[in-house]
Amino acid sequence: MKLAVPTETRPGERRVAMVPEVVGRLPGVEVAVQAGAGRAAHFGDDAYQERGASVVGDLAALLEGAEVVAKVQPPTPEELASWPEGLTLVSFLAPLAQPEVVQALADRRATVFSLDLLPRISRAQAMDALSSQATVAGYRAALAAAELLPKFFPLLMTAAGTVPPAKVLVIGAGVAGLQAIATARRLGAQVRAYDVRAAAKEEVQSLGATFVELPLETQEGAGGYARAQSEEFLTRQRELLAKEVAAADVVLTTAAVPGRRAPVLVTRSMVQQMAPGSVVVDLAADSGGNCEVTQAGQDVEVGEVVVRGLSNPPSGMPTHASFLYARNVANFLALLVRDGQLAPDFGDEIVNSTCVVRQGEVLHGPTREALGLP
Amino acid sequence: MKLAVPTETRPGERRVAMVPEVVGRLPGVEVAVQAGAGRAAHFGDDAYQERGASVVGDLAALLEGAEVVAKVQPPTPEELASWPEGLTLVSFLAPLAQPEVVQALADRRATVFSLDLLPRISRAQAMDALSSQATVAGYRAALAAAELLPKFFPLLMTAAGTVPPAKVLVIGAGVAGLQAIATARRLGAQVRAYDVRAAAKEEVQSLGATFVELPLETQEGAGGYARAQSEEFLTRQRELLAKEVAAADVVLTTAAVPGRRAPVLVTRSMVQQMAPGSVVVDLAADSGGNCEVTQAGQDVEVGEVVVRGLSNPPSGMPTHASFLYARNVANFLALLVRDGQLAPDFGDEIVNSTCVVRQGEVLHGPTREALGLP
Repeated sequence: MKLAVPTETRPGERRVAMVPEVVGRLPGVEVAVQAGAGRAAHFGDDAYQERGASVVGDLAALLEGAEVVAKVQPPTPEELASWPEGLTLVSFLAPLAQPEVVQALADRRATVFSLDLLPRISRAQAMDALSSQATVAGYRAALAAAELLPKFFPLLMTAAGTVPPAKVLVIGAGVAGLQAIATARRLGAQVRAYDVRAAAKEEVQSLGATFVELPLETQEGAGGYARAQSEEFLTRQRELLAKEVAAADVVLTTAAVPGRRAPVLVTRSMVQQMAPGSVVVDLAADSGGNCEVTQAGQDVEVGEVVVRGLSNPPSGMPTHASFLYARNVANFLALLVRDGQLAPDFGDEIVNSTCVVRQGEVLHGPTREALGLP
Repeated sequence: MKLAVPTETRPGERRVAMVPEVVGRLPGVEVAVQAGAGRAAHFGDDAYQERGASVVGDLAALLEGAEVVAKVQPPTPEELASWPEGLTLVSFLAPLAQPEVVQALADRRATVFSLDLLPRISRAQAMDALSSQATVAGYRAALAAAELLPKFFPLLMTAAGTVPPAKVLVIGAGVAGLQAIATARRLGAQVRAYDVRAAAKEEVQSLGATFVELPLETQEGAGGYARAQSEEFLTRQRELLAKEVAAADVVLTTAAVPGRRAPVLVTRSMVQQMAPGSVVVDLAADSGGNCEVTQAGQDVEVGEVVVRGLSNPPSGMPTHASFLYARNVANFLALLVRDGQLAPDFGDEIVNSTCVVRQGEVLHGPTREALGLP
């Protein structure tokens, strides 16, 4: 079986779906990498070749004879126009955000597995690319905040006097939030964290942070994700959060609901209550932002407070983000390949849940709806 | 006694010599702050006023009737032209780097105390502004490296696999180097550190880092600083360091010799031996750089390695840098003021060592020489 790894083409995307170290761990799979595909993540063509991959300059030649394509970002409809028919794609897809891409894949009679649809069961953890990339994002968010803040994160006792630790508030204690907490704690900050899911309390506390409890009903959704909230709930939540935000040097927001616009948890007026020099880092910037003033990829100043909208944070640390993603892909491929042959078992819960398109047929219910399919 | 605190005018300087919190700790001293002086460090005029300082819009009015002026950067000769005669200045001065400023101060019949000339005795530690600012610089250098590196600093054990910790090499284990080590260790990196002073070994090890021993004679200088080295010594040192540099993901250089150009410890060819994606952060950029390719305030790419020349790193974290500096200034002023009157005791070792100009007479030997004074 031949696996093709094209160069990512989305602007600003520095990751690559396969790394040299993982190439050797794919028994029975012949890996072909597009020339320069790993360059932005600092994996040279020679490093892939040393691990037994072939390097192909041209995309058409790369896809010729391939059965599976591994990508980070989905291909564009324009790219797909030149794809051979019948390929299998493993990628992030966010099918509801771009149903036109799903349609274009169906038109190429492709079979498509979207890693963002993995069920949250323990067997799927080793393939969970949303989690691995959220780990990177949470780490990057805490670093960005430390660099932006005009103060130290750690308590410092110096001959000139004692500097108190920074007060960091993390909103949303999923994978990204927990890694942000851990990183801010490593740097010595005092961390408080809030999540609508009461279940997050124990994890937050195990990292040495204080769990913020607001007098609101819990909002546990399916599969361990937060569910979408009513506008009334959000208003009350914002009122209660305002005092926490005002007391923080740093607010890190990580509240995303899969497939929807991120909820606005921090309003402009809440930012205005923060002390001069404070910092907000918004990890939900690409899905609209948890902060009202967030602009993806930009620093917005509200008085003397900076609000950074981190865009695609895993791409900012492409070597390790790609390494973890490639491991996820390799673990997922193990479900699709038997004795070196592509043979997905659609009876497997993981294979079945992630399959958005099968040989041109759109299977994913919500996407069928978005495309107006019967 | 009236203490005047002007707005810093050097481009990129965001610090201020006095902060509101410290204003109240200067018994018998009337503090006047130029309007907006603390703004870039996030101290508002109102905050100074709440602590009892007066805020004055105009520099001439600020200096009118003042006896002492506190600054971070020395005034320029142009600024000095409008200074009243006979003022006392407490500031960083680096008198040898800018003898023309010393001359201009002497022309104004000023008395000048340069905080960079403090003797390294324990009584002076609370005034040691070089150390407090180096603490900030070392912290900032480690953060900058973590943000630039396309990998994690910490070891991470995730469901997708284990990521090894980053390998950080710190060259120069003075105050800045030790803080860089501590910060990189906090973030979970594996740290090795090198210093020409054998005495640094114990401090390095106490922070959980490995001390790199090269077969070279020790280079302990006066007052606990490193002394300048011969070109022959430096060449041999570079040869021995090359292997250490090549093995590191991150090299942080902090080797400065007061009043001289920083020694070049990392050549371009050493950088070329580093793996793609590696990072060099040079804290000595403003004094010429420890790395051959360093440009102050810029990122220079050598192949796939980034060399960042940090310019004035304490200014990048102006709130706490100013807080520590103001504490240093306050502690120093306690030596100059008795019963609310300016009465420096020139018999005191600290007062005597730091006094570069006294009522217009240049006292500092090396500066007299630089100015061609008999």
